[in-house]
Amino acid sequence: MEDDKPQKRRHDSTAHPIEIGGATCPVPLQDYPKIVLGHGGGGKLSGELVEHVFLPAFQNVHLNRLGDSAVFQATSLQAIGQRLAMSTDSYVVRPLFFPGGSIGDLAINGTVNDLAMSGAIPLYLSAAFIIEEGFPITELKRIADAMGTAARNAGVTVITGDTKVVEQGHGDGCYINTAGVGVVPDGIEIAPNHARPGDVVILSGTLGDHGMAIMSVREGLEFEAEIQSDSAPLAEMVAAILRVCPDVHVLRDPTRGGLAASLNEIAASSECGIVIEETRVPINPIVQSACEILGFDPLLVANEGKLVCMVPAEFADAVLSAIRTDKHGRNAAIIGNVVAEHPGVVVAKTAIGASRVVITAIGEQLPRIC
Amino acid sequence: MEDDKPQKRRHDSTAHPIEIGGATCPVPLQDYPKIVLGHGGGGKLSGELVEHVFLPAFQNVHLNRLGDSAVFQATSLQAIGQRLAMSTDSYVVRPLFFPGGSIGDLAINGTVNDLAMSGAIPLYLSAAFIIEEGFPITELKRIADAMGTAARNAGVTVITGDTKVVEQGHGDGCYINTAGVGVVPDGIEIAPNHARPGDVVILSGTLGDHGMAIMSVREGLEFEAEIQSDSAPLAEMVAAILRVCPDVHVLRDPTRGGLAASLNEIAASSECGIVIEETRVPINPIVQSACEILGFDPLLVANEGKLVCMVPAEFADAVLSAIRTDKHGRNAAIIGNVVAEHPGVVVAKTAIGASRVVITAIGEQLPRIC
Repeated sequence: MEDDKPQKRRHDSTAHPIEIGGATCPVPLQDYPKIVLGHGGGGKLSGELVEHVFLPAFQNVHLNRLGDSAVFQATSLQAIGQRLAMSTDSYVVRPLFFPGGSIGDLAINGTVNDLAMSGAIPLYLSAAFIIEEGFPITELKRIADAMGTAARNAGVTVITGDTKVVEQGHGDGCYINTAGVGVVPDGIEIAPNHARPGDVVILSGTLGDHGMAIMSVREGLEFEAEIQSDSAPLAEMVAAILRVCPDVHVLRDPTRGGLAASLNEIAASSECGIVIEETRVPINPIVQSACEILGFDPLLVANEGKLVCMVPAEFADAVLSAIRTDKHGRNAAIIGNVVAEHPGVVVAKTAIGASRVVITAIGEQLPRIC
Repeated sequence: MEDDKPQKRRHDSTAHPIEIGGATCPVPLQDYPKIVLGHGGGGKLSGELVEHVFLPAFQNVHLNRLGDSAVFQATSLQAIGQRLAMSTDSYVVRPLFFPGGSIGDLAINGTVNDLAMSGAIPLYLSAAFIIEEGFPITELKRIADAMGTAARNAGVTVITGDTKVVEQGHGDGCYINTAGVGVVPDGIEIAPNHARPGDVVILSGTLGDHGMAIMSVREGLEFEAEIQSDSAPLAEMVAAILRVCPDVHVLRDPTRGGLAASLNEIAASSECGIVIEETRVPINPIVQSACEILGFDPLLVANEGKLVCMVPAEFADAVLSAIRTDKHGRNAAIIGNVVAEHPGVVVAKTAIGASRVVITAIGEQLPRIC
């Protein structure tokens, strides 16, 4: 079997009705502008979607084999590391398309970043769609194409997938789940409970862009410049960090719940305190305005292309420089320290020198943000 | 770091209000009988769900670490094989609980089986939930517990997960996605395009049980005996097959679209014809009755604990015996052959000796069946 020969297509239905085994399906794909329940049935319509929407978008031999699962070589990974990492996230963002990206970008970058936060090199993703009956196929194609592009930019391959369709009123256009697998280089020991007193806290860029991009659209707000989601893959940034620092303690991407949630989780896991200086936290002034208008604390707003890291003090400057070499890390800044005091508690020093406790939101500041 | 020490719990909120960093959340988990949007927010409520519903259900050190992704050793897998397999499926079945199982069982067994159909030994799963606001937490716990039990029965570990919450009217109780990774033993070459003329087609048991169990509940039908879903893990059955046959060509679990969809996909992929004898296909008489009453062709009805395999004729008897040693394979039967004629077409010989072409449903006979 030649590994790189794509599966022979059973039929080309874009031009004429489908024929299999003597039976003719009279309605080819272009006459189904919207998703119908049948697209989730595992029959001919499902096959149509795979062949004409998903395979062209993701373009790889694994998917082309159309097997129940995708098989890939693991031996070549051994040269990199002895461990694998696995992660998953579902994406239910509204709206589906927003300034700076779409649910498709989030679905790829989000899972890529979760793997990268363990120090793993992301490699293979799965992509599963739960689509609402009536969803326009042109929009599904836009999303799939965005995912294909994001995957290529992130250096990962979507090798397996699934599609389910639910009736109207039981979905919301399109939900996506991605899961990912990556290889962890030997010697990497990055985990939320590895922060140590004395560690320096570094943030890779401006806070709140994604959350405020979404909220601007939802609330119909316009500013001098459009707020764009920061959705981006961070694996290369992590690799740059690891090249200059062999002892990175913690990496976290502050998505839902924002930086506040991440820092609180790390402080609790590591049983340390964290102190940050608000004036050192980079924020786009337009995002700051949006937060003030809408009543949000930027520390609690979701980000989709940022990381926070904790490293021993002696590596701080090198790590900061390394992050800034990455196109998504130009605004990186040292924002604070890990301390032995008040374990589990995150404190922010304000512009006027006062201190406030940074708490995680109890519930949900921004529903359906990712 | 000790790998097997669970994360220290931040708080025990089942008995008293949550306190973190001086702030008190006045409403502990037992006072939130239903899922609210906040449970999907990545904040304290999300943490509650993880600690009190998911961690107890899945009980393993990977999840307990609460990292962005889960890391596992890959070196020990090398002794088994050089390749890994990955698969994913989303589960949107209605109703959530049915005779013989639940969405939780399907979510574990379905992905386990997809991996097994590539000849892989399933190892690690991710589990992502999209929950509708208002869903009772007690039902979520039932589902999570069912998944934990199914995972232990299948010999796999759920090592990472995610929870999102959507507003009422944009979900349906609970949707689940699982993705899985397994190791493929060296020498295994099983794929849908490997069927060859002369191969014997073997089915592991009765058709239509799952689909008719679901439909009986939906249609309010009662029979002499309750029809039960056949949801079951098949990795052990596959292992038994592989022990007696070093040259298994095809394995497929006939889920959505039933045996008809699987055989048609294999016939098309392999560019062969398939001939089956209807009288040799095992069907529970009660399921047969249900199909007749509801107007379904059993060949098109979903199964969740069956496999069809194609093996060289010289191994047929040994494989049949091996399947029958498995508790889920007692009714296994040889049902037909792969032929060189009519490539891509599946033919069924009926009880009266006539032949009919078995075609895949165009759309969806049974929506939301898995």
